[in-house]
Amino acid sequence: MEAEQKHALFIQAKEWTIEAGERIKERVQQPFKVNTKRDRKDLVTEVDEDTEKFFAEKIRNTYPDHQVLGEEGFGDDVTSLDGMVWIIDPIDGTMNFVHQKRNFAISVAIYQDGEGIIGLIYNVMTGDLYSAKKGEGAYKNKDLLPKLDRTRKLEDCLIGINQFWAVPNRRLDETGVHQLIRKVRGTRSYGSAALEFAFVAEGIMDGYITMRLAPWDIAAGVIIVQEVGGMATRADGKPLDMLRENTVITCNPAVHKEIIDNYLILKD
Amino acid sequence: MEAEQKHALFIQAKEWTIEAGERIKERVQQPFKVNTKRDRKDLVTEVDEDTEKFFAEKIRNTYPDHQVLGEEGFGDDVTSLDGMVWIIDPIDGTMNFVHQKRNFAISVAIYQDGEGIIGLIYNVMTGDLYSAKKGEGAYKNKDLLPKLDRTRKLEDCLIGINQFWAVPNRRLDETGVHQLIRKVRGTRSYGSAALEFAFVAEGIMDGYITMRLAPWDIAAGVIIVQEVGGMATRADGKPLDMLRENTVITCNPAVHKEIIDNYLILKD
Repeated sequence: MEAEQKHALFIQAKEWTIEAGERIKERVQQPFKVNTKRDRKDLVTEVDEDTEKFFAEKIRNTYPDHQVLGEEGFGDDVTSLDGMVWIIDPIDGTMNFVHQKRNFAISVAIYQDGEGIIGLIYNVMTGDLYSAKKGEGAYKNKDLLPKLDRTRKLEDCLIGINQFWAVPNRRLDETGVHQLIRKVRGTRSYGSAALEFAFVAEGIMDGYITMRLAPWDIAAGVIIVQEVGGMATRADGKPLDMLRENTVITCNPAVHKEIIDNYLILKD
Repeated sequence: MEAEQKHALFIQAKEWTIEAGERIKERVQQPFKVNTKRDRKDLVTEVDEDTEKFFAEKIRNTYPDHQVLGEEGFGDDVTSLDGMVWIIDPIDGTMNFVHQKRNFAISVAIYQDGEGIIGLIYNVMTGDLYSAKKGEGAYKNKDLLPKLDRTRKLEDCLIGINQFWAVPNRRLDETGVHQLIRKVRGTRSYGSAALEFAFVAEGIMDGYITMRLAPWDIAAGVIIVQEVGGMATRADGKPLDMLRENTVITCNPAVHKEIIDNYLILKD
């Protein structure tokens, strides 16, 4: 895609993202209906659904040949990444949206023939927009984010990981996670994968690890992290697949191999 | 203490806290010296130290009969809570201050004969001030915080707990923590005890549990949480002691006994 064309697409995606954020801000203080999806911890609200519909309609009207892959099912039944595909999480961190009324994000990514070209993560309540166009760097609002410090040592790292992966589970050996928690300087858990990717890109966390994320949770984050020189792979180091769930590690490149080799003992 | 006198003290403490926050904000983007204390995860910066000196000097000049108990040792050698004692953490969440340049707080509490009468937690970078005078409710900025919802069920709770307590450790049986992590709706970890207390008071988390905190980490938080009807005790349910380290659980009163009885298996 030509740079000019990509820029026009970026501007359009950004405009819709900000507009969607404004609509969410209006509704966050009002009552809204909360439902559960596959289990009682997996929440969805009518605001998630309406926000995804907003994007799907805008995209279909403006770019009828683009596909939409969205968390809430108002997009297309995407089975291939050929052509242009928007991958959207209307509210990433729905539990935070419901319980905290902050610490959630809109995540919008555009992939062309399987390659991520535009990523946007909008922290709705703070108004911070993390964005990237492939090959042109990543930004927090208007500030170009610096490349990650490649001299980082694991013992000085702050790592994002949900407490759940330190509990016996069927995806990875928790004792490896325990060793990692002991090794690093500190751990954090914020409850929004998109924001945790953004924080890795910003360098305020050095990594984020989780064992089950859908494409919409990570599609924008991967593009943004890669633009600052960060890694984003499956937990075994293999490439992420944007058509299915993945184990995920995104981090400073200086510690990627060390974490995978020494601490992530996968059960599959 | 008379209400009027308490209010004057509150206004003074608030003014110094905001002023200290302004000074920290000026320095957070500049280079500053970082040292370690009892281990390599226990950081202190010259900004922590200068901020505590700022408070200690102001308090000594204005209230020469008050004692100061501070994290960095510029206060007094406090061995009794008789009289008026200020308990201060100049920067709570120093690791966040260093790595993130946000998500840290100034914590200031005033105790009279062992009873907390004024608490202030200032989230410096967002500008949010959580405050309470005993018996007069808790505030976030100018908004009175509502009492906590006493019908909360544990399975709907969001709980703050550091990943470290899910790893085998010498203070509590990690398997109880694992059960708790499975039971609740979600867990979070923000890396600032003062802010986690503030979030419990605000109702955006339902509890916060940790096994080793100093008085300055919790002194203000306890007062603020109690003003919204929340609990703050040792992990065995006994009262906190403001002259030594404590295990800590602060939470919605609806789940306090259930968490202590069923999930916190202490080793001491």
